[in-house]
Amino acid sequence: MSKTNPGNFFEDFQVGQVIEHATPRTVTEGDRAAYGSLYPTRFAVPSSAAFAASVGLEQHPVEELIGFHIAFGKTVPDVSLNAVANLGYAECRFHRPVVPGDTLSTKSEVIGLKQNSNGKSGVVYVRSTATNQRGEVAIDWARWVMVHKRNQAAAAPETVIPELAKAVDAKNLIVPKGLDFSAYDFTAAGEPHRLADYEVGEKIDHVDGVTLTESEHQQATRLWQNTAKVHFNVEARPDGRNLVYGGHIISLARALSFNGLANAQLVAAINAGAHTSPAFAGDTVYAWSEVLDRVETDAPGVGALRLRLVATKGRDESMTLRGEDPSTGSGQAAKYAPGVLLDLDYWALIPA
Amino acid sequence: MSKTNPGNFFEDFQVGQVIEHATPRTVTEGDRAAYGSLYPTRFAVPSSAAFAASVGLEQHPVEELIGFHIAFGKTVPDVSLNAVANLGYAECRFHRPVVPGDTLSTKSEVIGLKQNSNGKSGVVYVRSTATNQRGEVAIDWARWVMVHKRNQAAAAPETVIPELAKAVDAKNLIVPKGLDFSAYDFTAAGEPHRLADYEVGEKIDHVDGVTLTESEHQQATRLWQNTAKVHFNVEARPDGRNLVYGGHIISLARALSFNGLANAQLVAAINAGAHTSPAFAGDTVYAWSEVLDRVETDAPGVGALRLRLVATKGRDESMTLRGEDPSTGSGQAAKYAPGVLLDLDYWALIPA
Amino acid sequence: MSKTNPGNFFEDFQVGQVIEHATPRTVTEGDRAAYGSLYPTRFAVPSSAAFAASVGLEQHPVEELIGFHIAFGKTVPDVSLNAVANLGYAECRFHRPVVPGDTLSTKSEVIGLKQNSNGKSGVVYVRSTATNQRGEVAIDWARWVMVHKRNQAAAAPETVIPELAKAVDAKNLIVPKGLDFSAYDFTAAGEPHRLADYEVGEKIDHVDGVTLTESEHQQATRLWQNTAKVHFNVEARPDGRNLVYGGHIISLARALSFNGLANAQLVAAINAGAHTSPAFAGDTVYAWSEVLDRVETDAPGVGALRLRLVATKGRDESMTLRGEDPSTGSGQAAKYAPGVLLDLDYWALIPA
Repeated sequence: MSKTNPGNFFEDFQVGQVIEHATPRTVTEGDRAAYGSLYPTRFAVPSSAAFAASVGLEQHPVEELIGFHIAFGKTVPDVSLNAVANLGYAECRFHRPVVPGDTLSTKSEVIGLKQNSNGKSGVVYVRSTATNQRGEVAIDWARWVMVHKRNQAAAAPETVIPELAKAVDAKNLIVPKGLDFSAYDFTAAGEPHRLADYEVGEKIDHVDGVTLTESEHQQATRLWQNTAKVHFNVEARPDGRNLVYGGHIISLARALSFNGLANAQLVAAINAGAHTSPAFAGDTVYAWSEVLDRVETDAPGVGALRLRLVATKGRDESMTLRGEDPSTGSGQAAKYAPGVLLDLDYWALIPA
Repeated sequence: MSKTNPGNFFEDFQVGQVIEHATPRTVTEGDRAAYGSLYPTRFAVPSSAAFAASVGLEQHPVEELIGFHIAFGKTVPDVSLNAVANLGYAECRFHRPVVPGDTLSTKSEVIGLKQNSNGKSGVVYVRSTATNQRGEVAIDWARWVMVHKRNQAAAAPETVIPELAKAVDAKNLIVPKGLDFSAYDFTAAGEPHRLADYEVGEKIDHVDGVTLTESEHQQATRLWQNTAKVHFNVEARPDGRNLVYGGHIISLARALSFNGLANAQLVAAINAGAHTSPAFAGDTVYAWSEVLDRVETDAPGVGALRLRLVATKGRDESMTLRGEDPSTGSGQAAKYAPGVLLDLDYWALIPA
Repeated sequence: MSKTNPGNFFEDFQVGQVIEHATPRTVTEGDRAAYGSLYPTRFAVPSSAAFAASVGLEQHPVEELIGFHIAFGKTVPDVSLNAVANLGYAECRFHRPVVPGDTLSTKSEVIGLKQNSNGKSGVVYVRSTATNQRGEVAIDWARWVMVHKRNQAAAAPETVIPELAKAVDAKNLIVPKGLDFSAYDFTAAGEPHRLADYEVGEKIDHVDGVTLTESEHQQATRLWQNTAKVHFNVEARPDGRNLVYGGHIISLARALSFNGLANAQLVAAINAGAHTSPAFAGDTVYAWSEVLDRVETDAPGVGALRLRLVATKGRDESMTLRGEDPSTGSGQAAKYAPGVLLDLDYWALIPA
């Protein structure tokens, strides 16, 4: 019998099944430096131990997305090695900051299945949970992905589609223990804007762009132990090009959003995310944000902004998310505008 | 009002103005490793904690240039986002070693202004100071830069040109607390040459060359949170090429200088620096040094060499800094020889 | 006299000579992260401090190959700067895990010499030993390399060819202090296969491939302070291409071998190694392994597999090491099959 991992196919999943993913991984200060060399991040909390301490955090957290990418990467060999496409995320919450020394492990429960009408593939819904070495939940999220069938003749499972919230309810947001923005240093953080300065519906063009290089996206993706071969092996795709990991675009866009959202220090939740177009080395990526909601929290001086973060190939100063759909002229959801790479809906914590 | 940072233009600066730069940044062992993957550095003090302890240092410092690049990078969004050119450095001193765990913040005072006769731009002189989390000065330096005017009709400020030393006086050099080279291990350090072995006027061809790659210069520059878009975005320049950050060439040349200057362990001061030509991925960079001065210090066994460090595109075994100026045939300063990328004047500490 | 290092030529070596190599280097968590960004490694022991503790290790070791590359890199300026070719390794043993904070130094003793019949070069045999800051042996190995003569008229030394073991004897394998696999978590480690599941003669195709990029192999090689110019300088070779450091292929193949050998957690010894063909950026590297031997050890639950690890350019599902030699049709050793880059013989520790 082959000793290598063929990955799971659609018919290998059952609702209720729990998968413990390999391998646990310890986060270190080396990850913080590597992240800083790969993304133009400047948020003061993950950048500065002194700033983090000044806002009440006992230890110096790394960027939430470092934890997310590591935790997510673990699910790839079991969940999406035979994926056609990653379809969406929901209900992702960051339960406590990840700090150097933490070891993350991830497990997933299958919470839904729906075979496609073509009989060749199906959608698998999983809820994944990353815990630290003390067994405390660090991050959890739902994700659904279209996976090939190994055997097209295999019977279709009963269709189960989980109910997933369109967005994490503001009252369910988790603020890190001790976080206190009441003596927040806006000068050190780089911008004067606080919660009340952002209007719902406001759009912010983050101005700066970064041209993707072949080595950088691979180094980032490899750092998360993500093994999807399309990112690393030019022989794995008919076009001979390495596809950029979607999470690379998330991190890049989040870092670019510093310019205009410098005080949106911490990611508290990811409500939804769509990778709307593939990206490749040579593409120049820009970002813009739209304010979707703003709320206060119970923590001193801490508010939350719900933001849509959009990454584009080439700068779109008009910040257009969707084109008009000429066939309907109606209220129907139109297609994403050309150039849109990512549409991410998340909550960030910001001084109130 | 736009929430993004447009940077300062020439008319935004006033003499005496103090700018506190964002964002503080903690130095880690991850930075040491990243630096070692990007530059061929082998100086024994930053390479080895055991060697550093053996020469009296309480903690294991990182390369001085790591501190310098981080501290410098913070000034970019406020001082040089709208720069035409970086014109020079002076009076840069390293006041104490930067060690992992230190958080650096930078502030700058405007110490001079001179509008150009064309009325389109002007020269801004700043003195910048980087402090650690205890408020102690880590590095300070003067720098002048040519900055665009936003509005050409804006009135010219009174011209103030600061007096800056041509070189840091040897008696003002700062030797790190505890440094003692009296039991220095030349074998471990890699070369037998001490202070007295270097003659003023001597030139050293460092032999080795490194071909610049697109990813490496960007990773380095990003690590320092330097946001100048010309380094990262091929759409930011008419030629569609990413300009290599001048500091990348400084670090590369300093690392190459190990071969012949292995015992020039610590950078104590930077007297002057000129980036004389742009560099791009694909260029192969070599370095040579000229001994400008040599002195003893009060610290046991510690001498100081004043060195000119020259980086070139392509190897120049003749080590020619300036071409003959055919139009004058006189003592006038001639232009830099073709291929010269960097002319840096600095003080290094070396066993006496 | 020139202050730069010309390296040693064949006639500079004498049997019995001991060379202390520069420069000591401290291993950090930054190296672990850098390694993880450059190689797709997922072995649970170096990945997770918690897993390492669960198998009895007091501190969290880095990959053995990090120690090996650092220790090996130190020998390059003295032993192989003027090498024609690296010919082989033998008797490499890992005496104790290398952990962050350890400072490695290397010395070499010349144990053999044989001038080539052409009088232009000769083979130098050295035994190198890397010690930590406490003077404890971390790694030792023998290596032989063909080195140019400076002066072809120099007299040939007496030929001395050391006796080197074809493989480290199983009874001489060193198991790290405290290692105990009796409560090993196969789920966390990623595969169910233990010692008894591997048959001598069995071959494992590791399936995945990685396309080499220019920046990544250079960053890796530079991290080990390996200064061989052919890796970094396109002007150093007539074909204008950077040769990939052979150790980069070793690390890449070892990481790829996770898929099928996930429980081969620790490298205990390297018996032999040949870099059979050069590799360049753009090549896509795959790996396969052959089980050469399997033994139990005295440590609880710890077995050892002797493995042949083969890296290839392009995937060879037939896993052919050597082509038939048409000129003989006999039992004579035939040439390596086209595409074979590396043939490495090593011992790994695995749950029994």
